Amino acid sequence: MSGNTFGTLFRITTWGESHGSAVGVVVDGCPAGLQLCGEDVQKELDRRRPGQSRASSSRQEADRVEMLSGIFEGRTTGTPISMLVWNKDADSSAYDALKDKPRPGHADFAYQMKYGLRDHRGGGRASARETVGRVAAGAIAKRLLISEGIHIIGYVIELGGIKADIESSDISELSVKAESNPVRCPDLDAAKNMLQRLDEVRQEKDSLGGIVAVIAEGVPPGLGEPVFDKLDADLAKALMSIGAVKAVEIGIGLHSAKMLGSEMNDSLKIREGEIEFESNNAGGILGGISTGAPIVCKIAVKPTPSIAKRQRTVDIASMKSAEIEIVGRHDPAIPPRIVPVAEAMVAVVLADHLLRQRAARL
Amino acid sequence: MSGNTFGTLFRITTWGESHGSAVGVVVDGCPAGLQLCGEDVQKELDRRRPGQSRASSSRQEADRVEMLSGIFEGRTTGTPISMLVWNKDADSSAYDALKDKPRPGHADFAYQMKYGLRDHRGGGRASARETVGRVAAGAIAKRLLISEGIHIIGYVIELGGIKADIESSDISELSVKAESNPVRCPDLDAAKNMLQRLDEVRQEKDSLGGIVAVIAEGVPPGLGEPVFDKLDADLAKALMSIGAVKAVEIGIGLHSAKMLGSEMNDSLKIREGEIEFESNNAGGILGGISTGAPIVCKIAVKPTPSIAKRQRTVDIASMKSAEIEIVGRHDPAIPPRIVPVAEAMVAVVLADHLLRQRAARL
Amino acid sequence: MSGNTFGTLFRITTWGESHGSAVGVVVDGCPAGLQLCGEDVQKELDRRRPGQSRASSSRQEADRVEMLSGIFEGRTTGTPISMLVWNKDADSSAYDALKDKPRPGHADFAYQMKYGLRDHRGGGRASARETVGRVAAGAIAKRLLISEGIHIIGYVIELGGIKADIESSDISELSVKAESNPVRCPDLDAAKNMLQRLDEVRQEKDSLGGIVAVIAEGVPPGLGEPVFDKLDADLAKALMSIGAVKAVEIGIGLHSAKMLGSEMNDSLKIREGEIEFESNNAGGILGGISTGAPIVCKIAVKPTPSIAKRQRTVDIASMKSAEIEIVGRHDPAIPPRIVPVAEAMVAVVLADHLLRQRAARL
Amino acid sequence: MSGNTFGTLFRITTWGESHGSAVGVVVDGCPAGLQLCGEDVQKELDRRRPGQSRASSSRQEADRVEMLSGIFEGRTTGTPISMLVWNKDADSSAYDALKDKPRPGHADFAYQMKYGLRDHRGGGRASARETVGRVAAGAIAKRLLISEGIHIIGYVIELGGIKADIESSDISELSVKAESNPVRCPDLDAAKNMLQRLDEVRQEKDSLGGIVAVIAEGVPPGLGEPVFDKLDADLAKALMSIGAVKAVEIGIGLHSAKMLGSEMNDSLKIREGEIEFESNNAGGILGGISTGAPIVCKIAVKPTPSIAKRQRTVDIASMKSAEIEIVGRHDPAIPPRIVPVAEAMVAVVLADHLLRQRAARL
Repeated sequence: MSGNTFGTLFRITTWGESHGSAVGVVVDGCPAGLQLCGEDVQKELDRRRPGQSRASSSRQEADRVEMLSGIFEGRTTGTPISMLVWNKDADSSAYDALKDKPRPGHADFAYQMKYGLRDHRGGGRASARETVGRVAAGAIAKRLLISEGIHIIGYVIELGGIKADIESSDISELSVKAESNPVRCPDLDAAKNMLQRLDEVRQEKDSLGGIVAVIAEGVPPGLGEPVFDKLDADLAKALMSIGAVKAVEIGIGLHSAKMLGSEMNDSLKIREGEIEFESNNAGGILGGISTGAPIVCKIAVKPTPSIAKRQRTVDIASMKSAEIEIVGRHDPAIPPRIVPVAEAMVAVVLADHLLRQRAARL
Repeated sequence: MSGNTFGTLFRITTWGESHGSAVGVVVDGCPAGLQLCGEDVQKELDRRRPGQSRASSSRQEADRVEMLSGIFEGRTTGTPISMLVWNKDADSSAYDALKDKPRPGHADFAYQMKYGLRDHRGGGRASARETVGRVAAGAIAKRLLISEGIHIIGYVIELGGIKADIESSDISELSVKAESNPVRCPDLDAAKNMLQRLDEVRQEKDSLGGIVAVIAEGVPPGLGEPVFDKLDADLAKALMSIGAVKAVEIGIGLHSAKMLGSEMNDSLKIREGEIEFESNNAGGILGGISTGAPIVCKIAVKPTPSIAKRQRTVDIASMKSAEIEIVGRHDPAIPPRIVPVAEAMVAVVLADHLLRQRAARL
Repeated sequence: MSGNTFGTLFRITTWGESHGSAVGVVVDGCPAGLQLCGEDVQKELDRRRPGQSRASSSRQEADRVEMLSGIFEGRTTGTPISMLVWNKDADSSAYDALKDKPRPGHADFAYQMKYGLRDHRGGGRASARETVGRVAAGAIAKRLLISEGIHIIGYVIELGGIKADIESSDISELSVKAESNPVRCPDLDAAKNMLQRLDEVRQEKDSLGGIVAVIAEGVPPGLGEPVFDKLDADLAKALMSIGAVKAVEIGIGLHSAKMLGSEMNDSLKIREGEIEFESNNAGGILGGISTGAPIVCKIAVKPTPSIAKRQRTVDIASMKSAEIEIVGRHDPAIPPRIVPVAEAMVAVVLADHLLRQRAARL
Repeated sequence: MSGNTFGTLFRITTWGESHGSAVGVVVDGCPAGLQLCGEDVQKELDRRRPGQSRASSSRQEADRVEMLSGIFEGRTTGTPISMLVWNKDADSSAYDALKDKPRPGHADFAYQMKYGLRDHRGGGRASARETVGRVAAGAIAKRLLISEGIHIIGYVIELGGIKADIESSDISELSVKAESNPVRCPDLDAAKNMLQRLDEVRQEKDSLGGIVAVIAEGVPPGLGEPVFDKLDADLAKALMSIGAVKAVEIGIGLHSAKMLGSEMNDSLKIREGEIEFESNNAGGILGGISTGAPIVCKIAVKPTPSIAKRQRTVDIASMKSAEIEIVGRHDPAIPPRIVPVAEAMVAVVLADHLLRQRAARL
């Protein structure tokens, strides 16, 4: 129980179900004095919002954030910041038929087994709508990080097996390009192919998976608390806690398993009087502590489990085999919409460790 | 700070440096009444111990555990269990030359930047020796899990690019085979090739990476606390917190990114009156909660960063370029020895969530 | 930072300022399946509400709770329960004059020093209005406890030096009598005197302190987690965290300092086949663990710091001496209104430890 | 479960039973760079040690601390500091007769009910010997606080109803005087009477309670995290978690219940350009945040429950009435020996909040 709070000093608590009255988050531990307004949060929520393109669900939610506490005269006061978004376009009718038939690839069965009952409407707490709170909290974390010169971006690097060719390492450029297209892929040619592939699978009543990268630049060395609250460990938890994520990689990630030590190790050098790394296979983290190099995370996102294709399941009331076809409004692929969520979680982890690091030395 | 404690109800706190007097762990929250003796812990420490084969470092440590509290007349009392292993074969001489020269791929530079000073001997707290505490704690967690019918095994599935062919799904058989060879690979042909490859890279003064799988069977449905303390999220943190791990996968993991929803989703069926899944791409976890299917995790382990080959680094005292060759006793590959560590971390997570789940329902 | 969350398994997070848009709480970790409706919470909020009698402030707030999540078809689902109360009758005008003049006995100066800025309107986060969230959360904790046969009551035992004579040990009777009068004192004669004394001090532009008792009956033996999360330690924290509380006593409390061991120790006896204590000086807790005897806590509540009398303070803008007279709507004594708040905090602690205790044995 | 860890950033985990092999503590989160040696800890342990005078138990323990980790070349490294004290003079024989007969006023019955079994020797985990870990950790906290100009002292202000007359407010003087006599009372006349009273009750096979004050000077304003981790709330928990403590007061404490608002409120003034309080009824804390005035805490300590007088109890094996006379080595009063323990707990709370406060502002 009580798994809805994350973080040690910069700490977020999310709440709300897909088809309940509202979803929201309480952000506790944001330092006092940070300039913050509703628009800072709204612009991130707008990036997350469904109904915006053919790459996403057609559920229409304005998702206007209400900031209820913790801000006075345009600045944070150090007290908890409570934010809320009302659910307006929830349509539960499609879910009644599914009440006793757990959808494959969804949390339905697991929630039922855990709690003995569940709010089945729209996936309840296990809905992607739960990420509204994460994104709102992440927006505040980002503001805090920006005030310290830390910038976070995310984008899709693979969708339905189509890989992007990422040439630039300029995060502003990558971000602008990624945000310019519905699949959030900075390789515009690949983006076109991804969109086409998405149209195909939607026709086939199926869905696609993909890979998303999140990069943080400007992170000072020293963040992360060995041996359990290592920066990469907390990033792994934060990212794996997002629905549909099945793998987390740091730096070169899985490929490190195939490398020699002499290839993997990032050599150090002096450049203009500063210590630098010649490469960044480590993804900016060694021994669980940031090194000053860019933090690089990747997540594998499974294909949307809600598909219109016929699937086999069971009826838990009659304990008989059953079949379902999931109608309703669903993203044909999650990666484009997961980008702001993944960025938010990385931002929350970095904000927390930025504050924790203040206690590291005398 | 204070990142050396892990878990909510079953909670471990590790301490100790590679070349300090001892390493140890305090296990708090183990339920009272569990039969437990030193041998239960010792046998796991023996699996972790170096100096056992040509696949591992030649440092000789008996690693005899002393159990100092929390046990009375052969049973746990519910009070903290403190365990300690003395460091005996520490040889710091090789490290003096490295004091100001951070070893590439190691935590040296990051610790120095974080704390402003560090115990450089043998990697200090960032040494693999830190895992003694994890394995000792994991041994207790395993005992607790076994009392509930949960069994955990781990093995190497890839080393230096050589992949094992895992045909069996019988975990006893897999375990016996894996423990029968120095690389802990249940595919004995692959194991032979891996060992040969290890000999080669040692000759080349280099090292290998690989992939380790950990499987837990008998896990009841319902474990995991959405939305942040999801079972997969806590497993990801636990596993990523082990040194040298660069990726964590749950179930089919990274490959899910290339699948269609209709391929990825595990259908449900009724078999002999029980609900089952037709496949286990999910790795036993949906919505962050265990489903009753086996939990499957994989970790990518980077090649040992300590290599005898010449490497470029810097001298942080003189702020000049430098070169190092790391002599000393190092594993040419970490995966075989990481197996008991990864099992231990999975065990600690499951033990914690087993206890937390007791609070889920009225 | 992040001190707005309390509890381990049954965990509450409160938010909101006196003159912001709303105040609220997120309750995480309430077991699934508990019958719960808005009225369960509303009736406790109504007990806390100001403007009800001459013993309390005249601020008029309907304080209607909105329950936004975590409940489905009249039962808790195991997911977070978010509750909110809008601020409607906030009148900030009286506070502008006090912006730079910290009120003696209030948190104004301390908040300013801590955060460098503050929401000065109505005490901001340090207002008694913050307890709305505590009481709402406590109402849920009480429901959970009642389902396990645990009942909590509170009442005033001393006000302005007037002591109640508590003869009964029947908590239902005590509760009915206490709730029958504005000062919440079960000794009706004393209550009359207290009310008269309150009228006097209000005339004198002054205020009174007092003592409140909270009793929990039906608590099973075994609750409390030594050595730091002892039941009495967590009760002390919970109660001391309420504004205006300056002392917490368990059982016979302070008077134990004057007793002999032979007087203090509660002897054990067998009665009808059950082990019982002959007295309850311990207040139902030994070694930090409940014994099955009633839990008895007392708190000393200082006089309301907001008084109309002229007081000396400083102007922090000009750094000169200043005088203030606090006009506005203030309770002439806090104890009557703190009763439901103290009950709520005791309920939250007991609910948390009730769940934690489930993990104590194999 | 897992109640043996205390603190958020400066975090301690204690372990060990009275008659087990050892007792100890792991201190995590001490900032790197603090000069620290064994003697800093030993001198505090020596103050806590029994067998030193006629005011304390005759158990002889050298209590030599071994510092096993976290220190390198005389400074803390930021990694966990593990400390251990071996139990040498444990004599369990006296306890066998008590195995099934819970001692009145002791934790025996409660532990048995909680865990279903217990280490009955010497009180097991519930022994005063558990405080060795607290005092060792507190010694490190004190070193950290001293480096920031914060000093903590404690002394006995009442024993067996004999009150000390504390005239001085010079904490150095108070400390020197208190440490000059076995009852640790700075009023030397009162101390003499207290010692005499102690002799009397020992003759009568009985024991005495008392009151201890702890004062912290030099605490900067701003420490404490509303609304639950208020400084006074955390102090209350820390102090109430010490065995035998039945009440905690902050500042004027219980007496505030009898005061008028105009008497209780500490007026503010300007003195030499600084803001000061004219009195310190608040005990240095307002709204749960330190104000810069000295922190003043008092605890009521019940009489030693182990008395040689005959007492009534039950035999839990036969479920019959029984009588016991507790022979063995016991302090006739706890207050003198609890002084260093209470100081230690206050030090740990302040160290933790000092670090937490670093995150309060941008």
